[in-house]
Amino acid sequence: MIKARPSREGSGLVDGRRRVVIEGVRPEIDGGRFPIKRVVGQSVAVEADVFTDGHDEIAGVIRYRHEQEQDWTDVALTFVENDRWRASFEVREQGLYYYTIAAWIDHFRSWQRDMRKRVAAAQDVTVDLLIGRDLIKAAALRADGADAERLNAIATAMEHGEERALTLKTVLEQELTDLMARHADHSWTTLYDKELAVIVDRVRAGFGAWYEAFPRSCAMALGRHGTFQDCEARLPYIAGMGFNVLYFPPIHPIGRTFRKGKNNDPVGSPDSVGSPWAIGAAEGGHKAIHPDLGTPEDFRRLIGKAREQGLEIALDLAFQCSPDHPYVKHHPEWFVQRPDGTIQYAENPPKKYQDIYPLNFESDQWAALWRELKEVVVHWIDQGVRIFRVDNPHTKPFAFWQRLIGEVKRDHPDVLFLAEAFTRPKVMYRLAKLGFTQSYTYFAWRQTKLELTQYFTELTKTDVREYFRPNLWHNTPDILTEQLQLGGRPVFMSRFILGATLGANYGIYGPAFELMESRP
Amino acid sequence: MIKARPSREGSGLVDGRRRVVIEGVRPEIDGGRFPIKRVVGQSVAVEADVFTDGHDEIAGVIRYRHEQEQDWTDVALTFVENDRWRASFEVREQGLYYYTIAAWIDHFRSWQRDMRKRVAAAQDVTVDLLIGRDLIKAAALRADGADAERLNAIATAMEHGEERALTLKTVLEQELTDLMARHADHSWTTLYDKELAVIVDRVRAGFGAWYEAFPRSCAMALGRHGTFQDCEARLPYIAGMGFNVLYFPPIHPIGRTFRKGKNNDPVGSPDSVGSPWAIGAAEGGHKAIHPDLGTPEDFRRLIGKAREQGLEIALDLAFQCSPDHPYVKHHPEWFVQRPDGTIQYAENPPKKYQDIYPLNFESDQWAALWRELKEVVVHWIDQGVRIFRVDNPHTKPFAFWQRLIGEVKRDHPDVLFLAEAFTRPKVMYRLAKLGFTQSYTYFAWRQTKLELTQYFTELTKTDVREYFRPNLWHNTPDILTEQLQLGGRPVFMSRFILGATLGANYGIYGPAFELMESRP
Repeated sequence: MIKARPSREGSGLVDGRRRVVIEGVRPEIDGGRFPIKRVVGQSVAVEADVFTDGHDEIAGVIRYRHEQEQDWTDVALTFVENDRWRASFEVREQGLYYYTIAAWIDHFRSWQRDMRKRVAAAQDVTVDLLIGRDLIKAAALRADGADAERLNAIATAMEHGEERALTLKTVLEQELTDLMARHADHSWTTLYDKELAVIVDRVRAGFGAWYEAFPRSCAMALGRHGTFQDCEARLPYIAGMGFNVLYFPPIHPIGRTFRKGKNNDPVGSPDSVGSPWAIGAAEGGHKAIHPDLGTPEDFRRLIGKAREQGLEIALDLAFQCSPDHPYVKHHPEWFVQRPDGTIQYAENPPKKYQDIYPLNFESDQWAALWRELKEVVVHWIDQGVRIFRVDNPHTKPFAFWQRLIGEVKRDHPDVLFLAEAFTRPKVMYRLAKLGFTQSYTYFAWRQTKLELTQYFTELTKTDVREYFRPNLWHNTPDILTEQLQLGGRPVFMSRFILGATLGANYGIYGPAFELMESRP
Repeated sequence: MIKARPSREGSGLVDGRRRVVIEGVRPEIDGGRFPIKRVVGQSVAVEADVFTDGHDEIAGVIRYRHEQEQDWTDVALTFVENDRWRASFEVREQGLYYYTIAAWIDHFRSWQRDMRKRVAAAQDVTVDLLIGRDLIKAAALRADGADAERLNAIATAMEHGEERALTLKTVLEQELTDLMARHADHSWTTLYDKELAVIVDRVRAGFGAWYEAFPRSCAMALGRHGTFQDCEARLPYIAGMGFNVLYFPPIHPIGRTFRKGKNNDPVGSPDSVGSPWAIGAAEGGHKAIHPDLGTPEDFRRLIGKAREQGLEIALDLAFQCSPDHPYVKHHPEWFVQRPDGTIQYAENPPKKYQDIYPLNFESDQWAALWRELKEVVVHWIDQGVRIFRVDNPHTKPFAFWQRLIGEVKRDHPDVLFLAEAFTRPKVMYRLAKLGFTQSYTYFAWRQTKLELTQYFTELTKTDVREYFRPNLWHNTPDILTEQLQLGGRPVFMSRFILGATLGANYGIYGPAFELMESRP
């Protein structure tokens, strides 16, 4: 167990004998501000530049531990080239792992190296043997049991200068090298000054095929509002195609005020079903189920039935409200109040989306709002949901997601979050860094060989791969690329194969995709 | 003056309304662990990714100050592309500067942007004007004097809804934009969590031509030991070639024990002059002057005479001792004691350098040793020296140099250190990062176009340029490349031009170089 004396760089009391430096550690995202990601069973290969002044040999370890372990496990660094060292470890449990680096001067191996040269040059090594003896005696004091005995025996033989040839053989053998390594002097070991984190997810985070479907469209009879029971009947069809995750757009009551019509008609009739993303009505908000879909019991049964088929149900987290959402009445402080007393609806001037009230994350009551939104997530976790697809996360504060995901995964490390952020690259990467398990990508719009090569080089050959897990969607209810509109069956098939081979996660919106629906 | 409330991320009390993130700051060496370098009059261009969630406009500044200033000076960030922002500032004084970044949501500019679109779409803007009025009234409370009056006047006009066209014109004009920017709301401004440093040197650190000469070889008469007075006579010749720095190898008394002979003869006669790097004899050590060179007065006079010619004298810092050095007698604890009671000489097994005793930086008395070596530097600073060429810095601990250079430059910011570390690249870069002003390079051995292009791309197009100032030496007493040995006048001339144009600092060992001495 390495216990280096703490370096007190801040107080100017660095021990000048701490001579090894450690820098250029990878992976290390933004100077260690964000964790890297792995799934259970994967390995973490850590590299660093480790070196010292002069010509002494050095040795070091990667140290890692699961958040619930007190003690570090050490893995010896091996030399790569050009002062670069490497070691790797396997992550076996969900949750957070930490890793860092320790390295030190290995005076004994320096001595062995020089001794070999002296012997080869037939030099007098009398004094050099005494130097080695002192190193070995010091190690014996740090050891106990059989190791201490053996070290002392070797030291004594060196001291007495007997049987020179045999002694020389012994001190250069691997047995002693290993013994000395086990009892190395860590008085001036350098500890890297950061403990870096790995967030370890279950295997599903790493690969999977997603199928998006509106539960209300699952009825076999045309024109009838589908139910969770109808969805049950669809499970064998979806599972039979090989999908692992069945993702539902919001299943909550839908607002009636300014309800939208079919096919992007901005004005609906009272009997239009409305957009599921206009969440909230008299029947309830984000914790309620649309009455036409079924009951909480129906939903929980569906989750169980899906599991039997090897399918997980993923829900949508769309943190916005219809004007009829109970929050509007009970928590008007969570919305922006306009000077005329009305509540601010969503806008992209001059466009107005009066059926949607965005939540106000700059409210004085932001902390209560954050707590409530976490309660929404916990509510669905309690119903058995373990995967969330998050709608437009880039329109809510980064710190909100970082806190929410961090807290939820601390209690439920098996919960996964997919970020639906179709926005600028640095925003998408930030969301991934702060905790989203997977991310939508630009894949659908990368079509030429050059575009695909450049994009997937960025995703797989840079630090991005350490924290951003692409989920390659071909289409969504909002997205049907020109290529799919015009290319017919060959494009549907070739894109599908690209998605399934360029990444480990892909998704389709069905049954439009598998029926090769090309009408926009 | 921006005074953001402190973020208390550690305590979990981040204000959720602090929505702007700042990342990807450049220059930032090793996560801010090391300063970048500039000379007086240069500028520092700082870039960062600055963005927020949603669609709000943002604004920000680079903040910088000299270490002796209390207050920050702010320079507005301008948008580059892809969430990248940039600003620059000029460094006008020697010493340390600090810089960091602050950024915030600019609700007023978001409002103006949307208002323009609403007006263009001929929408009713009655309520929107009231929203803008509230923003302006809030700014008026943060302002005083004429600004407050003007802001209140505009707000009142908006309130009364009079002269709609005139009001609309006023609120979209640059005057109000500027007023509002001056009194922006910094309640939730994000401050970058690091203050990054710039070490600002005098101009000579940035460019110069160096001439290395042994003062003992400055005598005009062949065979006579040169003196500082002889050197005075040489100054016009050296200055006349355009050099700025005249660097002397060690000028201290030379050990007699195991003294080396001429031309690498390992055994010298008692009357050999010896290697100036075998420092120390009965006459003194690192603070003494070799009696054959002259007196301290002679040396100080030479410095003055050189200055009159536009030349600075640079001294060698070679922290090692001959067996005759006073330290050996008075501070045996600063050397490695061998078990036979002797002191460890320098070795590269099986080679032995018995005329040199390395200092033991792992001594229990390391702190006293560090203090003494700093005293050596201060001694020569007191004699008027301001430039040191450091011999083999890579064989002494990194932390030693970091402390020494940091302390010396804190008191004497005009002192420059050139690292003579011909070793592995990461070691050379570390020495530059920790404080060396300039560094020897691999230039002499980079000869083909490809080699030169690759090397100078690394030195000038990567972060290396922020901290590593190359000094391109053509030859030294130890180095005469095969190219110079074999290529004759054309190679001497072309290499000289390469050195003078590929970098801003170069050096020659004379008069061997200008006389095109090609015998190894």
